[in-house]
Amino acid sequence: MYFKQILDHFNYNSLGNGTYDQRYLITDQYWKKGYGPIFFYTGNEGDIWEFALNSGFITELAAVQGALVIFAEHRYYGKSLPFGKDSFNIPEVGLLTVEQALADYAVMISELKKELGAQTCPVIVFGGSYGGMLSVYMRIRYPNIVAGALAASAPILSTAGLGDSRQFFQDVTADFEKFKPACRDAVKGAFQKLNTLAQQKDYSRIQSAFSLCKTPSTPKDIHQLNGLLRNAFTMMAMLDYPYSTQFIGSMPSFPVKVACETMLNGTDLMLALRDTVGIVYNSTGQLACYDLYGLYAECADPTGCGLGFDSYAWDYQACTEIEMCYESNNVTDMFPPMTFTEQQREQYCSKRWGVVPRPGWLKTQFWGQDLSTASNIIFSNGDLDPWANGGIRKSLSPSLIAINIPEGAHHLDLRESNPADPESVIVARKKESEIIAQWVKAARKEPS
Amino acid sequence: MYFKQILDHFNYNSLGNGTYDQRYLITDQYWKKGYGPIFFYTGNEGDIWEFALNSGFITELAAVQGALVIFAEHRYYGKSLPFGKDSFNIPEVGLLTVEQALADYAVMISELKKELGAQTCPVIVFGGSYGGMLSVYMRIRYPNIVAGALAASAPILSTAGLGDSRQFFQDVTADFEKFKPACRDAVKGAFQKLNTLAQQKDYSRIQSAFSLCKTPSTPKDIHQLNGLLRNAFTMMAMLDYPYSTQFIGSMPSFPVKVACETMLNGTDLMLALRDTVGIVYNSTGQLACYDLYGLYAECADPTGCGLGFDSYAWDYQACTEIEMCYESNNVTDMFPPMTFTEQQREQYCSKRWGVVPRPGWLKTQFWGQDLSTASNIIFSNGDLDPWANGGIRKSLSPSLIAINIPEGAHHLDLRESNPADPESVIVARKKESEIIAQWVKAARKEPS
Repeated sequence: MYFKQILDHFNYNSLGNGTYDQRYLITDQYWKKGYGPIFFYTGNEGDIWEFALNSGFITELAAVQGALVIFAEHRYYGKSLPFGKDSFNIPEVGLLTVEQALADYAVMISELKKELGAQTCPVIVFGGSYGGMLSVYMRIRYPNIVAGALAASAPILSTAGLGDSRQFFQDVTADFEKFKPACRDAVKGAFQKLNTLAQQKDYSRIQSAFSLCKTPSTPKDIHQLNGLLRNAFTMMAMLDYPYSTQFIGSMPSFPVKVACETMLNGTDLMLALRDTVGIVYNSTGQLACYDLYGLYAECADPTGCGLGFDSYAWDYQACTEIEMCYESNNVTDMFPPMTFTEQQREQYCSKRWGVVPRPGWLKTQFWGQDLSTASNIIFSNGDLDPWANGGIRKSLSPSLIAINIPEGAHHLDLRESNPADPESVIVARKKESEIIAQWVKAARKEPS
Repeated sequence: MYFKQILDHFNYNSLGNGTYDQRYLITDQYWKKGYGPIFFYTGNEGDIWEFALNSGFITELAAVQGALVIFAEHRYYGKSLPFGKDSFNIPEVGLLTVEQALADYAVMISELKKELGAQTCPVIVFGGSYGGMLSVYMRIRYPNIVAGALAASAPILSTAGLGDSRQFFQDVTADFEKFKPACRDAVKGAFQKLNTLAQQKDYSRIQSAFSLCKTPSTPKDIHQLNGLLRNAFTMMAMLDYPYSTQFIGSMPSFPVKVACETMLNGTDLMLALRDTVGIVYNSTGQLACYDLYGLYAECADPTGCGLGFDSYAWDYQACTEIEMCYESNNVTDMFPPMTFTEQQREQYCSKRWGVVPRPGWLKTQFWGQDLSTASNIIFSNGDLDPWANGGIRKSLSPSLIAINIPEGAHHLDLRESNPADPESVIVARKKESEIIAQWVKAARKEPS
């Protein structure tokens, strides 16, 4: 469905005081009409179908608890482009902020509750990753509207500039090391070989070793290659699920295991590295060669922005409010040294979008680690997920609850049940389900 | 002092990503440097000196509690005009919103704490009227920055469209009625006489009775006269202090008493009404006649916007987020029937500012009456104040505390001590002082 949404919640004289069509998915299949709770997914950086199809737990829970389910698409993503193909022009892109997205959800929930006769139905928000951050923010910003939040794999600290800039790639590395230390060593060794060839400017050997479509010819090309290679490991660590998935691309079951077996199988380290990143970039085996700039695009998020319109939007958010100055350094991680300092960020973002990032803004606006006055939030994290340690790992109070899932990758708990699920995610989902039922019970009240 | 402030907190590509100079007053005269709390006044709709000079309680409390005192001026008021004399053009005026003002204060507090070596000093916010609303909002929006709020006479419900549109002028009337029912009857009678003359189009008798500089000639002029007259009673009810004051004009001590004595003294009701409103418009006795359009300007706030640049800013806020559709009707109050419906508001605001108000927005954005998850807020109100019943009159929890002051007018408790103070405001200030000391004690912590 589409919702007629206010374009600018924070300026009554901007851009003609207009509206745009915000997409949402809705099902009342399980809803105890007018009574059951509303489960509202706070859409994040992509097409809302992508998240709906990979968050089956919410629908399973709705079936048990008689809930109405809504998946709302984030402005500037998917089909919710306020200015169509001009949405990423300047200044049109300026209405892409976290605050506008939250206000969208607040207005949408309030209006839909009226339309659907659901005024007294408690609302629980759900989200994974950046969507989980939005769920946290919805609960702290709009507790008048939202009774509780399940924030799965939400890196609310590391994206607010809190924590160690080395943490992310260190934790990616740890996943491979955990499988076998030799795996980490092999990856590190392969990157060293590549570095040696690059130093020697032996570009044609690099091309053949990595099956590149075009011969690299500059340090910039080598930098791009390193970024592309590193990104494949990021994806496999994040999406290290116990069964094959179609989410942000195609992934086999246990991709970290598959990657390490591939790394340790070959005799030539660089060929092994090529085949390993092929798990991500060439899952069908159809690619004859790798297009260096076509498969991966560098942006203001060192963990990757993806490709296409959605990647523009995320790049813009990483250039404004969301702070991800993560580095690899070849010491605390297995990757080549690649910095992304606040200065590099500012330089890139000024040039790309005409904006100056505001470090510290998310911490001011959404409380950083000073969450003691908040309530009714579950922070779930999987120990396999490199984002986990950028989030809340210990309960902060009886109603600010951390749930850690030892065998979990990036928001595994939001996915539908699967025979291959480890016991730890089954336990986590059960606990989440119980807490949410309590919140709903406590929030029941007369229409206000 | 002036603070280099971000012009648009919510759009990184607007108006050149600039800054403006925001004024603030600061004194460290009583501060236990680096340790004592920060008392921060969240400036409202006027020159910050006006509020600083009429909020002596804050400084008295700072002397006792060793606090640093800051009075911050609200953007678009006083000398804090982001675009100078062009600030009230369209679209420049569009950056005047509650959210921008709150973000200003959040950024200013965070930066000044660093600059002043006050990182560990708890911050308490204070405000009166709309400033009190801002104090409430600061605490619920930024509990990471603000440990508690004293919101004096903050009509957070009635300005969010919650409550009875007749309440305000009914409570103005009650003040005069309380002094003597005959006073209310005399005022009502005088307005009826005026109405009769207006029906007869006897404009010259109206001119002489009310000493108008120009003869009224249209129903619009009569409407303007009614507004001007009603406004004087609003002012006297709000500012019914037990000693003479210079705040929003010049006021004698106990103006309601003075008004009623004047009303009941004369033999001609209309002449008595003229002399009564003279308490407000002609306190010096220097005016030979009343300039119908020069002394009072109708705007989107039926309780009055004042005159000059500040009045433009307040009119704009009343046209966008702040909802004051209050009516008088001659039944529940003593004034002529004067409606201000949501439709009238929309019509006026579209024409004046090119904006469409968004009823319900403050309720969505700042929780309306759903404050149960908030904490550490004092809602003080004076029973004489017509704004009081638009605010919180009963404690909502042990840390959401209502303090009612039977003999208090509009935020009397914020004023400096005076020998004429009634016992009830002395008791209220003592209680406020104790609660604030507790908040400060509880909030002490290591730098985050």
